[in-house]
Amino acid sequence: MRLLKVDSISEARKKLLDAASAKVLKTEKVHFAKAMGRILAEDIESEENIPGFRRSTVDGYAVRAADTGGVTESIPVFLDIIEAVEMGKAPTKEVGPGQATYVPTGGMVPEGADAMVMVEYCEAFDETSIAVYEPVSPGRNVVSIGEDIPEGRTFLCKGQYIRPQEAGVLSSAGVFEPSVYAPWKVTIISTGDELIGADEIPAEGQIRDINTYSLSAAAAKMGFEVIDTKVLRDNEALIEEAVKNAMEVSDLVVVSGGSSKGEKDHTAAVMDRLGEPGVFTHGIALKPGKPTILGYDKVSETIMIGLPGHPAAALMVFELMIGWLYRTLTGQKEPIAVAAEITENIAAAGGRATCQLVELIEDETCIGGYKAVPVFGKSGMMTTLTRADGYVMIDTNAEGLKEGGRVKVVLF
Amino acid sequence: MRLLKVDSISEARKKLLDAASAKVLKTEKVHFAKAMGRILAEDIESEENIPGFRRSTVDGYAVRAADTGGVTESIPVFLDIIEAVEMGKAPTKEVGPGQATYVPTGGMVPEGADAMVMVEYCEAFDETSIAVYEPVSPGRNVVSIGEDIPEGRTFLCKGQYIRPQEAGVLSSAGVFEPSVYAPWKVTIISTGDELIGADEIPAEGQIRDINTYSLSAAAAKMGFEVIDTKVLRDNEALIEEAVKNAMEVSDLVVVSGGSSKGEKDHTAAVMDRLGEPGVFTHGIALKPGKPTILGYDKVSETIMIGLPGHPAAALMVFELMIGWLYRTLTGQKEPIAVAAEITENIAAAGGRATCQLVELIEDETCIGGYKAVPVFGKSGMMTTLTRADGYVMIDTNAEGLKEGGRVKVVLF
Repeated sequence: MRLLKVDSISEARKKLLDAASAKVLKTEKVHFAKAMGRILAEDIESEENIPGFRRSTVDGYAVRAADTGGVTESIPVFLDIIEAVEMGKAPTKEVGPGQATYVPTGGMVPEGADAMVMVEYCEAFDETSIAVYEPVSPGRNVVSIGEDIPEGRTFLCKGQYIRPQEAGVLSSAGVFEPSVYAPWKVTIISTGDELIGADEIPAEGQIRDINTYSLSAAAAKMGFEVIDTKVLRDNEALIEEAVKNAMEVSDLVVVSGGSSKGEKDHTAAVMDRLGEPGVFTHGIALKPGKPTILGYDKVSETIMIGLPGHPAAALMVFELMIGWLYRTLTGQKEPIAVAAEITENIAAAGGRATCQLVELIEDETCIGGYKAVPVFGKSGMMTTLTRADGYVMIDTNAEGLKEGGRVKVVLF
Repeated sequence: MRLLKVDSISEARKKLLDAASAKVLKTEKVHFAKAMGRILAEDIESEENIPGFRRSTVDGYAVRAADTGGVTESIPVFLDIIEAVEMGKAPTKEVGPGQATYVPTGGMVPEGADAMVMVEYCEAFDETSIAVYEPVSPGRNVVSIGEDIPEGRTFLCKGQYIRPQEAGVLSSAGVFEPSVYAPWKVTIISTGDELIGADEIPAEGQIRDINTYSLSAAAAKMGFEVIDTKVLRDNEALIEEAVKNAMEVSDLVVVSGGSSKGEKDHTAAVMDRLGEPGVFTHGIALKPGKPTILGYDKVSETIMIGLPGHPAAALMVFELMIGWLYRTLTGQKEPIAVAAEITENIAAAGGRATCQLVELIEDETCIGGYKAVPVFGKSGMMTTLTRADGYVMIDTNAEGLKEGGRVKVVLF
């Protein structure tokens, strides 16, 4: 039995980031309408002022604010209507003292005018004039040129995850093809003599493979492209051939199973042999997830990770290590977590951090509050995974969690 | 000026749900490997016991628990090793009294044995026997047949959003093609005389359309298929033709712009004319989002929504009405919200609910805590959208929010 010197999560992350920082992150230009879920690889500057003209935020009359000084509900000012601006068209007349132009919401405010009075505060006096019953200050109800985004201003930063709203803003600024990170190409290999394909009938002692599917789905969620998956016997030559082939075409090679001390442990040997410098982390002080292998090959720029065979542990470690790494390399924000009250005492695992699955139940007694109910189950049970909404990390040196204590739940 | 009788959010939702409940939700069979992000349209029952054999959760020895009664670190029991089980294979021998069989993690526990002792508590005595230093109770370190999912048990329910973990569990249970809801086909029409395409250069008074892109991205995020988008002049005949054509092929027709009272208000007229019963909500008591139109056509089973032209309002109302409706019809859970402390007083809008955009900033003083910083900006400004992480709803009759008060932030 080989003794593993395990790393803490932060040691393992530091080594992983150090190694992977040598990797070139490829970028590509993508039309903004197809860019949702992608990560910006450049700061986006506006090449024009937005809006490019003074826009009204209300339906009303463009006026000179000075003309409305001192008006009240009982003492209005009377202004001559000189024009009605149409949407999408420029006004033709400048607003002079004592004059007003009708402008709909989003319409262009004419020269001369410096504020908009809402129709609600105006009354038609006759065909060509209105009474204004409320004073406005200069700039009121008007978005000035460049007030939303001035020309030359960076309005979206490198590392921004593109949501529907960012797609909209890119379109509005006329940025057709922002540069985004090219998805990492990923190969996922699940190893184990007990594994059969999902479409086979298990004989005694056999189970259907889960990890190629759940890890593929997790990789897709991180924005990666899964180019190949394989279910292999726990045979060193088979694994070596598969990893070697994968390294030629993948940014990331994931091998699950076979890295626990009781199993044949080919993954670490293969990754160490094929990579330069090879494996730098032989185990992480994390429950579950101890038998995690991290490595790198600088020739092919391939990141290598050996995950536990246990599906829940494999998914969690994949997120904790690879999800974190990719967000860090691309400058993304960490996802927003949810504060909750834990409903049971959870003992800490001496010398190891613990990743505890929890289910979130709305706490009606408290605005936006949740209770975090620990999800327990014997190692390897799948239903623990589907019952959980997220997980809580308990630090290596923490004393565990006390019932009723506040915890931070990372959604899963 | 036509006076609109507006609905509260809950009145509008009730009418919308009542109308849309008549709509048949189509389903389709999708391979589990392609089902991530889809919604289950059926309860999923297991056709077999999982696991189908007694599995060990540790590397160790399968024993009769009774044999270990009373052993201690100084007084072990000696057992004869009769076999070493290989992964994926069934044991050939039954474990009798005084006997033990080696079983790796995930391997099959032989007949006769009722518990596993971890290797850490065993010591090789000679080639064919071990000393066991810790007592185990029956069932210890063994997952029994069907303990994870018993045959016939519903293990995933209708309405379940399929995450990576659900994809994995479906694969493991051999459910190849679960029934999921077919995505709604959606047509998005953005109207306004000021709008030009994203690839055009705006003249004075013109702006590039945002809503077709941001609403398409939002629809895709909800799991819909956007089959067509159009940017149209604010012309009743054009809008009518487009909506009519869209109704023939769409489950949902979205028209943004043109529903504000100051504008020409063709959307409501068109939807009311083309639909049976037509429009049932002429405005929602919501800031922003008042000029929202809701309608239905029972002949073509088309849901119709008219959204404000203002991009932030359009996105929020789309989520509040259509996102909510689809989750409700398909039985999905509402998304988990985040509790935060609001950093400023926010006045309520008399008689209307308010949807206040906020940015979340981590609060270092509090586990999992966030501060919610209101994002302000003049109506129609796009940058308010990209700065916000989510929104807070202030009820119609609430007094507004007090600085330091606790709020529930819906991520956006």
